[in-house]
Amino acid sequence: MSKLRFHSISRYIRALPQKRHIHVSPASSTSVPTPFAECPSRVFSGIQPTGIPHLGNYLCAISQWVKMQQQYDSMLLSIVDLHSITMPHDPEELRKNILQMAACLIACGINPETTILFQQSMVPYHTELAWILGCLCTIPRLSTLPQWKDKSKTVKDPGIGLFTYPILQSADILLYKSSVVPVGEDQITHLELAKDLARAFNRTYGVTFPECKAHIATMSKVRSLKDPTSKMSKSDVNATSRIDLTDSTKDVELKIKGSTTDSVSRQLSYDPKARPGVSNLIDIHCLLTDLTPERVVELCHDYNKVKYKELLADIINERIQPISDEMSRLLSDKHHLNTVLNTGCEKASEIAQCTMKEVKSLVGLR
Amino acid sequence: MSKLRFHSISRYIRALPQKRHIHVSPASSTSVPTPFAECPSRVFSGIQPTGIPHLGNYLCAISQWVKMQQQYDSMLLSIVDLHSITMPHDPEELRKNILQMAACLIACGINPETTILFQQSMVPYHTELAWILGCLCTIPRLSTLPQWKDKSKTVKDPGIGLFTYPILQSADILLYKSSVVPVGEDQITHLELAKDLARAFNRTYGVTFPECKAHIATMSKVRSLKDPTSKMSKSDVNATSRIDLTDSTKDVELKIKGSTTDSVSRQLSYDPKARPGVSNLIDIHCLLTDLTPERVVELCHDYNKVKYKELLADIINERIQPISDEMSRLLSDKHHLNTVLNTGCEKASEIAQCTMKEVKSLVGLR
Repeated sequence: MSKLRFHSISRYIRALPQKRHIHVSPASSTSVPTPFAECPSRVFSGIQPTGIPHLGNYLCAISQWVKMQQQYDSMLLSIVDLHSITMPHDPEELRKNILQMAACLIACGINPETTILFQQSMVPYHTELAWILGCLCTIPRLSTLPQWKDKSKTVKDPGIGLFTYPILQSADILLYKSSVVPVGEDQITHLELAKDLARAFNRTYGVTFPECKAHIATMSKVRSLKDPTSKMSKSDVNATSRIDLTDSTKDVELKIKGSTTDSVSRQLSYDPKARPGVSNLIDIHCLLTDLTPERVVELCHDYNKVKYKELLADIINERIQPISDEMSRLLSDKHHLNTVLNTGCEKASEIAQCTMKEVKSLVGLR
Repeated sequence: MSKLRFHSISRYIRALPQKRHIHVSPASSTSVPTPFAECPSRVFSGIQPTGIPHLGNYLCAISQWVKMQQQYDSMLLSIVDLHSITMPHDPEELRKNILQMAACLIACGINPETTILFQQSMVPYHTELAWILGCLCTIPRLSTLPQWKDKSKTVKDPGIGLFTYPILQSADILLYKSSVVPVGEDQITHLELAKDLARAFNRTYGVTFPECKAHIATMSKVRSLKDPTSKMSKSDVNATSRIDLTDSTKDVELKIKGSTTDSVSRQLSYDPKARPGVSNLIDIHCLLTDLTPERVVELCHDYNKVKYKELLADIINERIQPISDEMSRLLSDKHHLNTVLNTGCEKASEIAQCTMKEVKSLVGLR
């Protein structure tokens, strides 16, 4: 699974109208009219600090956020370190990765002047809201989540955190009354729990949270350079299957040159089913240049695969080498990075505090 | 179950030495030497804001805390409102009960100058530490807790909060590096989860938490005035089975007069098995006066049950009427009560912040 987690799935929700618990499925839940029609749109997304992002992470997530920060009234981007500790981790590695991720996001074009870029654990209200939402969510509702079903099989003695993290993700979104949450196509259902918990809270205590919407990336997934039937993945043991944003020019050239294509000798063509390897390279090309596959094929009609791979490596390098350089520059000034995260924390906390004041009052926590 | 909850039970704990999860039972866990031998002793206890405490709560818990605040270096007493929302509740009732409980504790003798009296939800670090500890605790470990087994049967669609609240209780204790936790005899095992989680954290990330010890109240439980085989309980539908701390002089007289004793006509004697009703009254007498049952029987050897009940009602009234009056006085000045809780929150937060700084650094959350 990609380490870029977004937000999570659901089925059963508990609500407490007056003093009674009600067990409803989303289908049967009546929607409460929300007074948020004129609210500014607010985007929230989270990324786990799990090391250097690869080209797939960049093209399918980070570069989308960079575009969205221009399109929406406000955007929060959280380095969700409290999610990282739901799996075994090395504290030193985590500490390093948090700053590295901050540097990477800024280097990729996230502007901390306009986007609230912050470290999740610096804002204590995430776990506080998660506690309150957890009292509205049943165990069966969490047990049916596909990610839990998958992950609990692979981890020995999974912790409670791995079971309940979808509630923390819901809190991440709702704490900022976010209205738009970017999710990949395979993650559309991940928002359902957050939406259900928002509805359960609104029904039980009074209308507080807006209905959040998924912003679905329609682009195809960037696939492994070695096995184009699977996604490009950080967990792939073969490092040549992916391009990391800090790969050198030479690394990129070698990895693209060695990428799996096919033995079809005729000119370039786009056919994801018949020619998955070549089509994956064209997809990457399109995502980097905003061209259509047809236009790429047209432009490169006289290129053989060797020549096309050289061209693509150049295009990739043109994009990622400045990012890599900027990351190094940013990481050489830890003080500045810390200041950026502290400022992000202050801005995020200001919104979170307002929400929690309202939430606590409605729940009766004075 | 008494609404005065203390702290909770356990069996399986997950630890992460390096990058591996380990599943250990407390019996097999090797204890890590802790550098806390010379630390001042710190007492922590929590009480749910569930309305007016009854005489049993007062004698078996609150009056013990009043004594302990003199005996120990420092004491924290938390009104644990985040635990109250794990069950269906009325927000207005909860809001009222929080201030009422604060007033009651002060009226009973808790001195907010020496004891840190605070509302749990005002200190956001409780849920934060609970999240971190939850990543070290497995689902089977929580599933075996007797309270979960009992409660999940009685509540329809119990929320995640009801399942995970023992982790929050552990965080309540450990957040203040508490070394002493007052528990009733039936709650000795409740501390085990907190102790196991402290050990798991110390093993995984480095020694941080001291071993906390149970301070066990050896006194017998105050029993129902109507059915002396069961505990005096707030949830008993028959209000004459208990004495609330705000009962009027007349209420107390009537309730004691109508209490179940027996048809034995001979003089007063203490025999909990053969004469549970009379013995319960003598127990209450002893707890109020620090006399032994033998001494009470000796002093009242020529009293019949009617006369003895009159005496006991007087003794009870002598103790609780000033408490009731003081509660009324305190509740008439909400501003003062809020100031007390705000000051308590500041003092508690100061300790909690130090712990969380240390915890976060060890976990790698920078």
